[in-house]
Amino acid sequence: MRREMEEMIRAQQAQICAAVADLDGSAFTVDDWQRDADGEHGGGGTTCVLQEGKIFEKAGVGVSVVTGTLSPEAAAAMGGGQGLDNARQSNRAFFAAGLSLVLHPHHPMAPTVHANYRYFERGPAEKPVAWWFGGGADLTPSYLFEQDARHFHGLHRATCDAHDPAFYPRFKQWCDRYFYLPHRGERRGIGGIFFDDLHDRPPAELLAFVRDCAATLVPAYLPLVRRRQQLPFSAAQKAWQQLRRGRYVEFNLVYDRGTLFGLKTAGRVESILMSLPLTARWEYQAAILPGSPEAELLEAVRNPRDWA
Amino acid sequence: MRREMEEMIRAQQAQICAAVADLDGSAFTVDDWQRDADGEHGGGGTTCVLQEGKIFEKAGVGVSVVTGTLSPEAAAAMGGGQGLDNARQSNRAFFAAGLSLVLHPHHPMAPTVHANYRYFERGPAEKPVAWWFGGGADLTPSYLFEQDARHFHGLHRATCDAHDPAFYPRFKQWCDRYFYLPHRGERRGIGGIFFDDLHDRPPAELLAFVRDCAATLVPAYLPLVRRRQQLPFSAAQKAWQQLRRGRYVEFNLVYDRGTLFGLKTAGRVESILMSLPLTARWEYQAAILPGSPEAELLEAVRNPRDWA
Repeated sequence: MRREMEEMIRAQQAQICAAVADLDGSAFTVDDWQRDADGEHGGGGTTCVLQEGKIFEKAGVGVSVVTGTLSPEAAAAMGGGQGLDNARQSNRAFFAAGLSLVLHPHHPMAPTVHANYRYFERGPAEKPVAWWFGGGADLTPSYLFEQDARHFHGLHRATCDAHDPAFYPRFKQWCDRYFYLPHRGERRGIGGIFFDDLHDRPPAELLAFVRDCAATLVPAYLPLVRRRQQLPFSAAQKAWQQLRRGRYVEFNLVYDRGTLFGLKTAGRVESILMSLPLTARWEYQAAILPGSPEAELLEAVRNPRDWA
Repeated sequence: MRREMEEMIRAQQAQICAAVADLDGSAFTVDDWQRDADGEHGGGGTTCVLQEGKIFEKAGVGVSVVTGTLSPEAAAAMGGGQGLDNARQSNRAFFAAGLSLVLHPHHPMAPTVHANYRYFERGPAEKPVAWWFGGGADLTPSYLFEQDARHFHGLHRATCDAHDPAFYPRFKQWCDRYFYLPHRGERRGIGGIFFDDLHDRPPAELLAFVRDCAATLVPAYLPLVRRRQQLPFSAAQKAWQQLRRGRYVEFNLVYDRGTLFGLKTAGRVESILMSLPLTARWEYQAAILPGSPEAELLEAVRNPRDWA
């Protein structure tokens, strides 16, 4: 499964980067990196970034395949290994393989997208004591286009339904719960799907599900960018996008478990913070006119709707 | 002491705002706000903000004077009340009065400054079971000017020395420890002073110390802005400032105890996040040339020096 997951996410990385580079007309820079193999930590990854492209302000698509031994505290915080005795060092060994991507377009009418698919094992490679899949994809527009929300959710629902009709309703709600900023009373965006600790059917079935989800990204997202980047926009609309980028930063730095876990366990900072937008803005008490398109977006992130 | 502290911080707020507004040639907007008095929380504050001024991108100077009852977890996390039995509800009552300010100039050669001075009580108003002062001031340049660092530290050292020669060395080190981003191996800036849980001498003496510190801000900082805003600068230098603003956001959202405490206890978000810069930037693997002024700044935030 370790090898199959790595092959799958590397293939998806190549396909997604090719589609994004084709739309942008720019090439990704590719960084292969390795963790210092100090006996405790091994593995590495490939980070592909396209910065200040024609269409994308910042697009990052990363693969990481790492092994190591967690501290008892980190093992307890990691999840997935419920019921494991974290005092046993062999139980704290882990393997993690993941694909993660964030695409931030320049155009304020084109949404940001994030996706992440990962596979974990705990325990020795030859005899894992726990394994699970996690992941999801979610859309963060600065302006709400219902057609786009229905398209993105609809394609993810179709992918889920092909595997289990119970998946989409559950994972859609999970997504709305997870990407929540309590101090703002807002979700980061208009959601998508999110799941974790998935291990309730044969691993090959879950790998196929996660692969299909990853393959949904390009058809679910790129058409929205193609469509919206044709629209005219004003400086005020660009400033609103920058404020929403600020909310994105707030979520990732204050609440996102993956980001905080990475920063606090000495992960590769450049890859972890690849998710942050190139530019962001914080105004004191930015004024939102009732009934404006900005207020409409706020309403959608405050009260999640059914889109599919 | 509650009343004296409030009078002091309101007077300092007025003086600092007047000096900043005079330099900028713009007026602050003034927001008086109150907490919902639901029996658990009371008080309010005054937040003064100058946004997109001539010299300051964002300048915020806030006073808050609040009372409430902490949860047992929040009480344990708050500090200052060492040895208090947090299971007793009367011990979890608190009073907090503070002045906090962050000034972000537009010009990349002019540093950002932050300062915060606060007084806490735990227990009933008529008979507090604990009290303490905390605070400090620290400088965050994007480019290092040794003359500026010596001036800022020198004036704060003089203020400290007038109260206790042991203060500055201790509070300077405390500042370097506190404003640290472990995931970057960098301090937020080049430091200043920081202290907390100060209650080892009569409260009137500590109030006088904290007042003198607050009064040091204008002479320690504004001359640096006046001096540096005359310099020419390039688009690349402005972009470097924006990257350093990104580090500022990282520190405040990932590590700053006051910010996280505020966000997680449903404080007034606009006042808490007033400290964030108007604009910030995150590049993937920004290139720094060895020996450049940017590398010199990095060296100074990686290896704190004695400036006074």
